[in-house]
Amino acid sequence: MGQSITFHKADQLKAKPDAGQLGFGKYFTDYMFEMDYSAEEGWHDPRIVPYGPISLDPAATIFHYGQEVFEGLKAYRTEDGRILLFRPDKNMERMNQSCARLNIPEIDEKFVIKAIKKLVAVEKDWIPSQSGQSLYIRPFIIGTDPALGVHPSNTYKLLIILSPVGSYFGNSIHPVKIYVEDEFVRAVKGGVGYAKTSGNYAASLKAQTKSEELGFDQVLWLDGVEHKYIEEVGSMNIFFKIEDEVWTPALNGSILPGVTRNSVIGLLKHWGITVKEKKISVRKLFKKAEKQKLLEVFGTGTAAVISPVGFLKWEDKVIKVGNGEIGELSQKLYDTLTGIQTGKSEDQLGWTQEVKIEKEEVKEKAVDKAEEKAEKKPAVTE
Amino acid sequence: MGQSITFHKADQLKAKPDAGQLGFGKYFTDYMFEMDYSAEEGWHDPRIVPYGPISLDPAATIFHYGQEVFEGLKAYRTEDGRILLFRPDKNMERMNQSCARLNIPEIDEKFVIKAIKKLVAVEKDWIPSQSGQSLYIRPFIIGTDPALGVHPSNTYKLLIILSPVGSYFGNSIHPVKIYVEDEFVRAVKGGVGYAKTSGNYAASLKAQTKSEELGFDQVLWLDGVEHKYIEEVGSMNIFFKIEDEVWTPALNGSILPGVTRNSVIGLLKHWGITVKEKKISVRKLFKKAEKQKLLEVFGTGTAAVISPVGFLKWEDKVIKVGNGEIGELSQKLYDTLTGIQTGKSEDQLGWTQEVKIEKEEVKEKAVDKAEEKAEKKPAVTE
Ligand SMILES: Cc1ncc(COP(=O)(O)O)c(C=O)c1O
Ligand SMILES: Cc1ncc(COP(=O)(O)O)c(C=O)c1O
Repeated sequence: MGQSITFHKADQLKAKPDAGQLGFGKYFTDYMFEMDYSAEEGWHDPRIVPYGPISLDPAATIFHYGQEVFEGLKAYRTEDGRILLFRPDKNMERMNQSCARLNIPEIDEKFVIKAIKKLVAVEKDWIPSQSGQSLYIRPFIIGTDPALGVHPSNTYKLLIILSPVGSYFGNSIHPVKIYVEDEFVRAVKGGVGYAKTSGNYAASLKAQTKSEELGFDQVLWLDGVEHKYIEEVGSMNIFFKIEDEVWTPALNGSILPGVTRNSVIGLLKHWGITVKEKKISVRKLFKKAEKQKLLEVFGTGTAAVISPVGFLKWEDKVIKVGNGEIGELSQKLYDTLTGIQTGKSEDQLGWTQEVKIEKEEVKEKAVDKAEEKAEKKPAVTE
Repeated sequence: MGQSITFHKADQLKAKPDAGQLGFGKYFTDYMFEMDYSAEEGWHDPRIVPYGPISLDPAATIFHYGQEVFEGLKAYRTEDGRILLFRPDKNMERMNQSCARLNIPEIDEKFVIKAIKKLVAVEKDWIPSQSGQSLYIRPFIIGTDPALGVHPSNTYKLLIILSPVGSYFGNSIHPVKIYVEDEFVRAVKGGVGYAKTSGNYAASLKAQTKSEELGFDQVLWLDGVEHKYIEEVGSMNIFFKIEDEVWTPALNGSILPGVTRNSVIGLLKHWGITVKEKKISVRKLFKKAEKQKLLEVFGTGTAAVISPVGFLKWEDKVIKVGNGEIGELSQKLYDTLTGIQTGKSEDQLGWTQEVKIEKEEVKEKAVDKAEEKAEKKPAVTE
């Protein structure tokens, strides 16, 4: 898709939030990316426009039949002022896998990465730079046909919005408490569990609320068939350090194939540590814990990076993992990953992509630049 | 909730579609109902407004985490000009069950029925009156919080839109061909299958497309655990006449509890026919068919009413049911149900509710009336 991205200038820019108050997903930048799909034109009219409400027919597919996919990745600010994306190609590959499952037309992965880079470049002043902070990038696609009746939409909208974020679970990497859910099910083989689509999260809300009522941070899901095998956490994949091996549930069609999961496996193997992707029964895991063989537990995800798990509850059994602090391997993975993401450590595996700011943009603020351009001609091509 | 419903007049009304061309869910009336929820105010500001686009923040919960429920019911025109709703109390009861599963705040069932009646009264001239036609009513609720991160929304919108419809599967009640899906799964126990929520339909699109490619009309879903037991069809529950009994899958948490299903069971029992709600394996069903004991198969749903099934395919086996025409019992159920719905047959079970048109509205068109009222004062309370 050799299309050019037009730019529509905002009349007014927002005040940026206090860097200490970011939280997750509460603030959004001045601009968003938008692109439309129709059967006749394919994906067309890519544009960067002021962040603002979208207007849809109340009969639109998204409101009734949930035809939607999304992604989540981050832009990081390095100490020497560069901007890095972490494996955006993996997110776009997964987005297309989700699209295939949800009957949504394929996107041009390279073009959407280009769009992400352009939007991030425009919004570069929104990338927070304190430790643990980043600019969260949320591309999503929704079906927009104004018609009832269960069938795939003929028209779609792809949007990308940006949110400056701090840490997902609060301010420090304190271990989280998770709870093995044995009643509610998130996904099952043959369903949409491996796709990043809204329905999976809708199905998870009830158990998430229940876990919070019980005093836990997150739910650990079991498989939907036998309610025996460990799948993943709310928005993280899960890893167990058992003696000198690391285990994680194998991808089986109902687990989201996390980019962080894939990266952690890559790093561990690179370090010569045995990683086993396998079916892990919760019973077996608790047996290992009883025998003091379960040394570390951690979740992995773009939002949470590496999140140590301090407590695990299943039925009436509770495991306290380690001494309630982050384990040695978890810490090493956290440091290495965030090191690569923020340009502090060498990127031996070629995982980062730099967002290049055009020459003039280096001298001036992106926003001033945007204003200039917009004054010269109403729509600027890249 | 003793709130009054305000009315906002449209500047212009649409031309009504040709009654022969209705199809399903393609046309919408001039007005819709809208109501908002916030933690502080609960459900508030109920209003009838001109049908038109809704404007939402691109970070709204519905676009990312699919927090949504919907319902589907119909208003029917009787020969003597009255307007009937069929068991709206059942739809509202189910809507609240769906809300409970999706962490959406409860609605006041009686109030929403009142809102439906008021909207239908305003739009009475949109109710088509040819045989098989009706005004489809689609209430739905969406989460609207402009924030990312997986948690229930704090704010919601309830909307009701109306669409004049013909028959769901085309113009005559010709038997449909269905196909037993043994790879994709729609829902599983512990999930959201029993709730009327968008994610269930998103998950079903792929198999639906596959079935059409294979030359079938609809998918017959099997259970998500063993892939052995029959659940339901795309948007219908399923019934089998086996010798002199009628079987239908028992409600098990992954099947939608259809209002038509419940009504059909009620009618059959009323007629003294044995109905068994049970686990039905597809293997057993095909055995019965081999022995010539499977006499009729039909789907039930608000959109499709009673839809005879003429062909059933599972793996490499195909059953032709009956002589390819609608069976005797299916026809009797169709006639009785549509008879009650359109006021032709006596409503012995008290299933219909009349939409009363206010006195003046009987004399004049609802729309003229609406104009008058709107001229007197901008917002009219009921
Ligand atoms: C259900 C689920 N599992 C796992 C993950 C982790 O995936 P990733 O590492 O790509 O962020 C996420 C978050 O994206 C998720 O939503
Ligand atoms: C999945 C599913 N099953 C069954 C039905 C039938 O339910 P009802 O008879 O209430 O329309 C519907 C339609 O509403 C449906 O969407």
